Order: sequence, then C-alpha cells, then structure tokens
Amino acid sequence: MNPREADFTLHPQLAADCHRLGDAPLCRLLLMNDAQYPWCILVPRRAEAREIYQLDLADQRQLLDESTTLGETLMRTFGGDKLNVAALGNVVPQLHLHHIVRRHGDPAWPAPVWGRHPAQPYAAEELADFCARLSTALPTWFGANPAPLVQTKHPG
Amino acid sequence: MNPREADFTLHPQLAADCHRLGDAPLCRLLLMNDAQYPWCILVPRRAEAREIYQLDLADQRQLLDESTTLGETLMRTFGGDKLNVAALGNVVPQLHLHHIVRRHGDPAWPAPVWGRHPAQPYAAEELADFCARLSTALPTWFGANPAPLVQTKHPG
Repeated sequence: MNPREADFTLHPQLAADCHRLGDAPLCRLLLMNDAQYPWCILVPRRAEAREIYQLDLADQRQLLDESTTLGETLMRTFGGDKLNVAALGNVVPQLHLHHIVRRHGDPAWPAPVWGRHPAQPYAAEELADFCARLSTALPTWFGANPAPLVQTKHPG
Repeated sequence: MNPREADFTLHPQLAADCHRLGDAPLCRLLLMNDAQYPWCILVPRRAEAREIYQLDLADQRQLLDESTTLGETLMRTFGGDKLNVAALGNVVPQLHLHHIVRRHGDPAWPAPVWGRHPAQPYAAEELADFCARLSTALPTWFGANPAPLVQTKHPG
C-alpha cells in the first residue's frame, strides 16, 4: 500500500454529505446525497492531497483514467446532455473531483449546481436503483456489495 | 497536424470573453477578461470535442500535463490559496478547462466564481503585467509574443 494511502481518512464533510459506494484502484467513490442530479465524487486515497498537481505522475494518470471511466459511464447510464467535472475544494480542501450529469431543464440548468438549490436526499428505493444501475456498469469498484457501504446522517 | 486540429475553431463566446495568450502543444491558452481572479482556460485544439473522455488517450494525457503545468504555475506565480479546475460547458459546449486561482477573501470566496459577480475587464497595464509574469514562467506557450494575440471587444 502507498504510504499516503495508509494515512488517508475521508474528510468528515464529505462523509456527511455523501453515500460511500466503493473503491476504484486509486479513489474512493462517493454519491452526493442529492437526488436532483446523478452526482458522483472521486477522492484519491492519498493523505494530504489538495491539488491534482500534488499527486505523483502515476497517481495523476490513474485519477484521469478513473475520472474518464466514471464520467463516460455516468453519461451513458443516466442519459445526460453535458458532464460537469470539477475540482474546487474551497470549503473542503481534501482533493475531490466532482462528476455531475447535467440535463437540459434540470433544477440548476445551465448554471453550475453549487449553491443553487438545497440538496434533496435520496429515498431508499431511489438510492437502491442508482446503486444497482451503476454497480452493473462498474462492478469491480463496488466490490461484493452493490449497496452503499455507509449510511449518511440523512439516508432519505 | 492532427486532422481534428485542422478543423478546430475557437467558440465565439470564448473569443469574446477572453484574451488569447498563446498555444501549448495541445491547447489554446486563454485569459478570462476578469481581473478579479487569475483565471486561465485551456481549449484543446480538437474539432467537435465536448467531453474529456471523447479525446483519445494521448490527448487526454497531454491535457492533464498541460493542466497540471498551468495550474501549478498560476498558483506559484499569483499566490493562491486554492486552485479551482473545472470542465463545465453547459453554456459553451466546446471542451474547455477552467483554471482559477482562488484566494481567501476574493469577491466570490468560498463560492464558485460562475454567476457571482460581473466580470471586471483588465485595464491595459494590468493585462500587460499579467502577461509578463505568466510568459516568464511559460515562455514556450507564448511563442515570440508575450502580449495577448487578439484583443477582445472589451480590452479594459
């Protein structure tokens, strides 16, 4: 294990806002608990990483690979018009990469989603359906468990 | 030249909103004409590209390399607290990657910059200073000309 992985812990704000779905080779895969948009987040399991350029080259390329795999899969599975990919981190400095499937006419369209509308937590059956569809497309990232690994404070 | 480069033309909205600074090996380098934030945009010179995952693998890795080079250079040169990197494209679908140096206390902090405050176009001397500093750090991207290559409609 990379020594920076051994010291990795997920930022508590991300843990509170998201469902944990699984692990790709580099990143933890999270689902933002907001049913208004198919919205996943990749968090490289590297302690102290804040910016993409702070990762070593192998990790940068692995992040790119996981990001394009996730982004294309989300767009194909959930039928989006445009993918939004972003590393912001002004509030949560731990490096994390948003992947948001946008559709013409979604609640924030065409504006960015941040700060527009309060999150609408997933109902249990919506969450199960999302996980079933994404885990079918990305089975190795979900491991043996296609359900969320940790319930948030607001599971819907 | 890649055949998709021969057919590349910059989206007119990007041409209107930005100063053209130069060309990296893959991307056109633009400066958003908003002096509130050091804010550069990379546009892969590939016709019809809308999403990162639509680039071939070599172009994806080149975009990553140019993005990390630009991001780290902007942060070092202009002294940011956090870098925001984003491919949105809800309004301008041509693939383009924002790099925005954020500082505690900037006009939109800690919110994302989009849609927060009207742009404040650069004054001529501010623009010259920005170009001088960035072209010193990235001389090959600016070619022989450290000044903007094309003036926008609102040069400041």
